[in-house]
Amino acid sequence: MTTPRTWTGHVFIATSVDGYIARPDGGLDWLTDGPAPDGDGGYSEFTAAIDHLLMGRGTYETVAAFDPWPYSRMRVVVLSSTLSTDDDRVTVVRSLDDAVDFLTDAGAERVYVDGGRVITSCLAAGLIDDLVITRVPVLLGAGLPLFGALPADVRLESLAAAPIGGGMVQERYTVVR
Amino acid sequence: MTTPRTWTGHVFIATSVDGYIARPDGGLDWLTDGPAPDGDGGYSEFTAAIDHLLMGRGTYETVAAFDPWPYSRMRVVVLSSTLSTDDDRVTVVRSLDDAVDFLTDAGAERVYVDGGRVITSCLAAGLIDDLVITRVPVLLGAGLPLFGALPADVRLESLAAAPIGGGMVQERYTVVR
Repeated sequence: MTTPRTWTGHVFIATSVDGYIARPDGGLDWLTDGPAPDGDGGYSEFTAAIDHLLMGRGTYETVAAFDPWPYSRMRVVVLSSTLSTDDDRVTVVRSLDDAVDFLTDAGAERVYVDGGRVITSCLAAGLIDDLVITRVPVLLGAGLPLFGALPADVRLESLAAAPIGGGMVQERYTVVR
Repeated sequence: MTTPRTWTGHVFIATSVDGYIARPDGGLDWLTDGPAPDGDGGYSEFTAAIDHLLMGRGTYETVAAFDPWPYSRMRVVVLSSTLSTDDDRVTVVRSLDDAVDFLTDAGAERVYVDGGRVITSCLAAGLIDDLVITRVPVLLGAGLPLFGALPADVRLESLAAAPIGGGMVQERYTVVR
């Protein structure tokens, strides 16, 4: 990264109380089959200010089948060293450095970063500015973790925490530099 | 467990936002060296209603050196298959079944369950009734996890979530049976 970053990175994600974003097989029943939050839990307000979405291959393979495609209002960048696709709704980049360069060249302003592995990589690289974490009231005991290993502590500042309906709790944090 | 349980099980614990209760070496600097919560974060109110404390060997070895001993108002039970001690402040039990029998025979009413492995074992065995989880605003990336593997989902009900000062957020849950 030689060019100054033009954009900020934002996380908006739901996890179990024990920190999983999906079951080991990717299953989301624990998220979708229970009580829903009030409205959409703030998702449309969050995405209204987003221009680009950066996700990993795992997330892409889950959402590729969604009909209609849920990301019409933002440009979608998929980070994968192996994915080959003719899906013209997305741009594939091969490394995090390439993603940063692409987003910066594209004049991105607010980037939604999604998926546990990509979120952790971006946290490690100092590319995340704030996080909205919605805790779903269940302990799964196993699954795909929201957070992984980091090279150093990432200090946060807690902005808010409140119930949002459906038994869910939403926490808002900014990353302290 | 053939005798009906006379007591309820309660968790009151602090974790990083990524779910660790200590660094890989047991370090708690991230918890103790930052801003403190208002008052004691509700700990004395919580413990005022507790008569027994069940902890694992790891937690015991951390707290054994504390001077003064912080648990004068409750009976401490240490769950360990190997610990040998002449510390007459604690009772050692060799298995979770033995812990349950001991607590029931002792007429325990409200049991504070502490330590990640013991909390997870008790959750798996249906021995936890509610949890107070205080999130400290840092991502550690590695450490001793609060929650481990479970034989099945544990459904929770969210009672409250609110900032408690020091950048910490406190969540309260009951276990749904």
